[in-house]
Amino acid sequence: MSINNLGIVKRNIERTDAETVERLAKFGVATIHEAFGRAGLMKPYMRPIYSGAHVCGTAVTVLLQPGDNWMLHVAAEQIRPGDVVVAGCTADSTDGFFGDLLATSYKSRGARGLIIDGGVRDVKDLTAMGFPVFSRAIHAKGCTRASLGSVNVPVVCAGAIVNPGDVVVADDDGVVVVPRAVAAQVATAAEAREANEAAKRTRFAAGELGLDMYGLREPLAKAGLKYID
Amino acid sequence: MSINNLGIVKRNIERTDAETVERLAKFGVATIHEAFGRAGLMKPYMRPIYSGAHVCGTAVTVLLQPGDNWMLHVAAEQIRPGDVVVAGCTADSTDGFFGDLLATSYKSRGARGLIIDGGVRDVKDLTAMGFPVFSRAIHAKGCTRASLGSVNVPVVCAGAIVNPGDVVVADDDGVVVVPRAVAAQVATAAEAREANEAAKRTRFAAGELGLDMYGLREPLAKAGLKYID
Amino acid sequence: MSINNLGIVKRNIERTDAETVERLAKFGVATIHEAFGRAGLMKPYMRPIYSGAHVCGTAVTVLLQPGDNWMLHVAAEQIRPGDVVVAGCTADSTDGFFGDLLATSYKSRGARGLIIDGGVRDVKDLTAMGFPVFSRAIHAKGCTRASLGSVNVPVVCAGAIVNPGDVVVADDDGVVVVPRAVAAQVATAAEAREANEAAKRTRFAAGELGLDMYGLREPLAKAGLKYID
Amino acid sequence: MSINNLGIVKRNIERTDAETVERLAKFGVATIHEAFGRAGLMKPYMRPIYSGAHVCGTAVTVLLQPGDNWMLHVAAEQIRPGDVVVAGCTADSTDGFFGDLLATSYKSRGARGLIIDGGVRDVKDLTAMGFPVFSRAIHAKGCTRASLGSVNVPVVCAGAIVNPGDVVVADDDGVVVVPRAVAAQVATAAEAREANEAAKRTRFAAGELGLDMYGLREPLAKAGLKYID
Amino acid sequence: MSINNLGIVKRNIERTDAETVERLAKFGVATIHEAFGRAGLMKPYMRPIYSGAHVCGTAVTVLLQPGDNWMLHVAAEQIRPGDVVVAGCTADSTDGFFGDLLATSYKSRGARGLIIDGGVRDVKDLTAMGFPVFSRAIHAKGCTRASLGSVNVPVVCAGAIVNPGDVVVADDDGVVVVPRAVAAQVATAAEAREANEAAKRTRFAAGELGLDMYGLREPLAKAGLKYID
Amino acid sequence: MSINNLGIVKRNIERTDAETVERLAKFGVATIHEAFGRAGLMKPYMRPIYSGAHVCGTAVTVLLQPGDNWMLHVAAEQIRPGDVVVAGCTADSTDGFFGDLLATSYKSRGARGLIIDGGVRDVKDLTAMGFPVFSRAIHAKGCTRASLGSVNVPVVCAGAIVNPGDVVVADDDGVVVVPRAVAAQVATAAEAREANEAAKRTRFAAGELGLDMYGLREPLAKAGLKYID
Repeated sequence: MSINNLGIVKRNIERTDAETVERLAKFGVATIHEAFGRAGLMKPYMRPIYSGAHVCGTAVTVLLQPGDNWMLHVAAEQIRPGDVVVAGCTADSTDGFFGDLLATSYKSRGARGLIIDGGVRDVKDLTAMGFPVFSRAIHAKGCTRASLGSVNVPVVCAGAIVNPGDVVVADDDGVVVVPRAVAAQVATAAEAREANEAAKRTRFAAGELGLDMYGLREPLAKAGLKYID
Repeated sequence: MSINNLGIVKRNIERTDAETVERLAKFGVATIHEAFGRAGLMKPYMRPIYSGAHVCGTAVTVLLQPGDNWMLHVAAEQIRPGDVVVAGCTADSTDGFFGDLLATSYKSRGARGLIIDGGVRDVKDLTAMGFPVFSRAIHAKGCTRASLGSVNVPVVCAGAIVNPGDVVVADDDGVVVVPRAVAAQVATAAEAREANEAAKRTRFAAGELGLDMYGLREPLAKAGLKYID
Repeated sequence: MSINNLGIVKRNIERTDAETVERLAKFGVATIHEAFGRAGLMKPYMRPIYSGAHVCGTAVTVLLQPGDNWMLHVAAEQIRPGDVVVAGCTADSTDGFFGDLLATSYKSRGARGLIIDGGVRDVKDLTAMGFPVFSRAIHAKGCTRASLGSVNVPVVCAGAIVNPGDVVVADDDGVVVVPRAVAAQVATAAEAREANEAAKRTRFAAGELGLDMYGLREPLAKAGLKYID
Repeated sequence: MSINNLGIVKRNIERTDAETVERLAKFGVATIHEAFGRAGLMKPYMRPIYSGAHVCGTAVTVLLQPGDNWMLHVAAEQIRPGDVVVAGCTADSTDGFFGDLLATSYKSRGARGLIIDGGVRDVKDLTAMGFPVFSRAIHAKGCTRASLGSVNVPVVCAGAIVNPGDVVVADDDGVVVVPRAVAAQVATAAEAREANEAAKRTRFAAGELGLDMYGLREPLAKAGLKYID
Repeated sequence: MSINNLGIVKRNIERTDAETVERLAKFGVATIHEAFGRAGLMKPYMRPIYSGAHVCGTAVTVLLQPGDNWMLHVAAEQIRPGDVVVAGCTADSTDGFFGDLLATSYKSRGARGLIIDGGVRDVKDLTAMGFPVFSRAIHAKGCTRASLGSVNVPVVCAGAIVNPGDVVVADDDGVVVVPRAVAAQVATAAEAREANEAAKRTRFAAGELGLDMYGLREPLAKAGLKYID
Repeated sequence: MSINNLGIVKRNIERTDAETVERLAKFGVATIHEAFGRAGLMKPYMRPIYSGAHVCGTAVTVLLQPGDNWMLHVAAEQIRPGDVVVAGCTADSTDGFFGDLLATSYKSRGARGLIIDGGVRDVKDLTAMGFPVFSRAIHAKGCTRASLGSVNVPVVCAGAIVNPGDVVVADDDGVVVVPRAVAAQVATAAEAREANEAAKRTRFAAGELGLDMYGLREPLAKAGLKYID
């Protein structure tokens, strides 16, 4: 076996159950990140290729070599409906690893989207297809197929650890990963938080200050804040 | 008193008069920057969270600590209708200092927008609200409330000095700051410039060359420009 | 004559013939880049100022000095209908070299768009005009007119060599340059490729895997890929 | 227990055995990276604070919050002789998390060095102490102590996953992580590789070409390489 | 008069008194930044051109236009022994604004060093002269002399506001600015801090933990930190 | 033949004559850049791997694919004593394309150094060998040998066009390229400039101002510079 998790395709992975995924799919990334105790976020350079893109699903992970998209073809076979492909890379690369042909393939396999710490191309077509992609770059540069990576091993994507089967949620605010083991717990926390936020929104809209709503005046004074005229 | 402008909220600030603000609100950032003698611009990494965002108002300034949005709550109380909150940070940070709840609060206080040398989140909601935000990043990362900054002290935001009460104008071309003392003068210059530009636009559209319109042929020849075939 | 290609305007350049340009205009950047044997791409920091911008034409090249747009005025006179102005810079600069007045001038001369390794401004107006611009930055910063560059010399723009008369194609995926001498050959290759891609798209949509379509299983096995459960 | 690995200190970790660590300590980062099948590297922005710094030891991991060095104090207590502290951060931060006082503390506990995906300060003192530090930045900015992170949980540091007890090796070429489970295997591979490299060095010095030594002429010809005069 | 602080040279500035400057000159940047209540730091991209560079003096400020070093010549005349020239720029530029000739001139006028938010060149000569320079870049690119900036107006340099006469201190950890009005106060605080640090260093060297020295165990427990085995 | 300059090795190139190279070798990069009319510079991210590195020689050019160093082996055979290998890349890559083995090979072939728009490794060994390398990054990451590039075709390296046989000069201030056709002319200009600079240095050292030496007072006054007290 591999000493370094390269050259491996794991076929059977345990996915987060569909019900939990759907519960999480109702929330935005910021809410889930908070419900998860402020963990799981990818770095802010990950951006949607079109405004309003939103995706939630179970991770099929891919470890790429820079400028080589061999493993994205290997990953296609491992996709099941409801999956999101999440690709990390062994070195920073902005090459166009993914385009409309692979998107057609992924979509036909039931993939809900792609999160890739690299570049993509054919963004006009991807947008027309409504296939949500979050990437570090957009670039037409073509890729080789020469170096082995892996599928369904733990990967680092844009600074976050992703295990196969984890839930991945992405929207205009970024990308967050929720491990399978705690996904239901995070969904519950997100539901509670959302209810709470609606109430706060009403109070803020009515002119109430966060200073009062959150009881900030006393700790601020203790910290030494001075008001002057 | 503070030796370093940290831990201070200045309550009474002198704002640029509303009439001058409205005169400036008619112009884009490029025009005002030129009318101001090519000064006052923030760095180009400041981008609107949605295309077409435009805001003009009087600055309530905030000095933030990285990853800490305590002072944005403190600032809310100092907002008056027509203000734009302008937040600098003591170190580069892309954390999500501001989201839809604070935006609801700011809007209810009469704020016209936010300029922040940091990250924001809930951009889908902010866009739906039509609340213009210009920031260095979009990121879901939550903030702490533990370190004092200040409100209404002079701040550096994306390379520009902003004093409370200055006029801040932002659109797709960036963000420009006009000090209160010269705002009326700059408005007058902008009005003159705009009139002049309309005339030029007509001449350019008719095929006249900038080489002739601006009398560039002679200085170019003097500088040594050679035409070859 | 100049020892360094600065201070020169070449008036008579050989442009790629119009028919070849129109053949290339039918394809996106990714297709042309592939048809050209994966060459000719500019770096991925070159982005359209509005989503969906697309341009194809013959290059009028400009070599700029940082923060100085004198030569963009000089270039205007050299534009013929069907040209795209391609501007490189002797040092990285994000200043706003180009705005709506120059765009009006360029449009009236028949220019199809601008590719500039620098900043532009008035993007709201440029968007309204439908004048496609691809740039490294958007910034309101004004320029001087004091330092000589050149027009219609070979330039490096965002990492690519561009000669006057070459075909330049740009869309959401980036910018590609095709030298005049091989433009017809590349057009033919692009036509062949496009036909081929349509067939592949149908097969991918039907669920066929790239692993099978491209015969990847054997080379992957040879490279040592292991499937585990 | 924590749902997200925040707020935890794991006291008992299994460290790679000392003998294996010493075997790896004989090699540079490039050799170990190759021996490990080209895996385990951190990103190239991680640089030594002084030229020639070199460290090899067992990882005590720290998860930091941006601008907050509370957990570096917590980690000090967990250090045993031969450890290297490896700190990741939940968001990019260049603040000065670490300086000469903490270095004095770490050194007295037997730490061999620090790898930190953030900033450090007092680099003149650290250099004088000969305490090897590899960081993403140098900055005098002070930190708060207000937000919980963790000690000895799996962390991502500069793109690499690090588990407590793994071997970390750093020199002028960067930083590489070798998991405990395969460290002995990698050491053996490194020893073999080094022997092999010495032989190649001699042949290269004698003028032999890599083309011949590695048998590259045939695959290059097959790939289509053409020699012209 | 100028509406925007461009095109001005202020001849008579009030400098921080020499005694206070010498008191501050004894400390490193990290210590002064802390003594100043964690304020006044420039961004971490400002780096010394040679390791070990250290400078402390009174600021003669310069506002540059990108790629134009006219005002550095104007500034030379305003230098008095003990000054440090601090140059900001109206837009990001890495051009080589300063080299060995200007350094020779500055040195002969009594300048102690240069802090510049731009590029410099001739670094081998500057190093040989022992003239400390802190810059954002090193680049041989030459500058023009065509656009007016200013001398001895308030400038923003690498994110910090600098007024003429302020004390500027720079070393391997970065650059810090101390306003004239509080310089003596900051010097006193730095002296107190340094004494305190020496004591702490001894205790850390003896193996005492920051957890105990700073009383961190209780607040950490309150914040919810859990120790596990 | 190749339509895109990929997959080609040109064996016979015309090198700048040795005498001219030696004349240029006496000067630093800043001087040559000025003597060349301020042209030919690479971007400032190109840095020497050790301080004080200096190289001047005739270019053997290499076009690399990202993360692939096949062509560096191909280039070795084309090296003649006095050459400097200059490598561009079809996409940004920081991988370690070059290390001590290739350096041993290049040195044995008579190469004077390497300029590479990519990463290198084994920098400790390269430094010990005194083999000057200028690169965009240092990284241990290994490379593949799978994609054809070219040798001795025109390349873009860090923004500069380099033709085989051109003179390349690099030192602490950066890297400059002088085309073969004008190398002697540039050498003559550099010699004149150097003589002139020595005289200026003496006058600057004696306290004379650039304002007077260059006659700047009048143009500054004309441009509107105001002196105030």
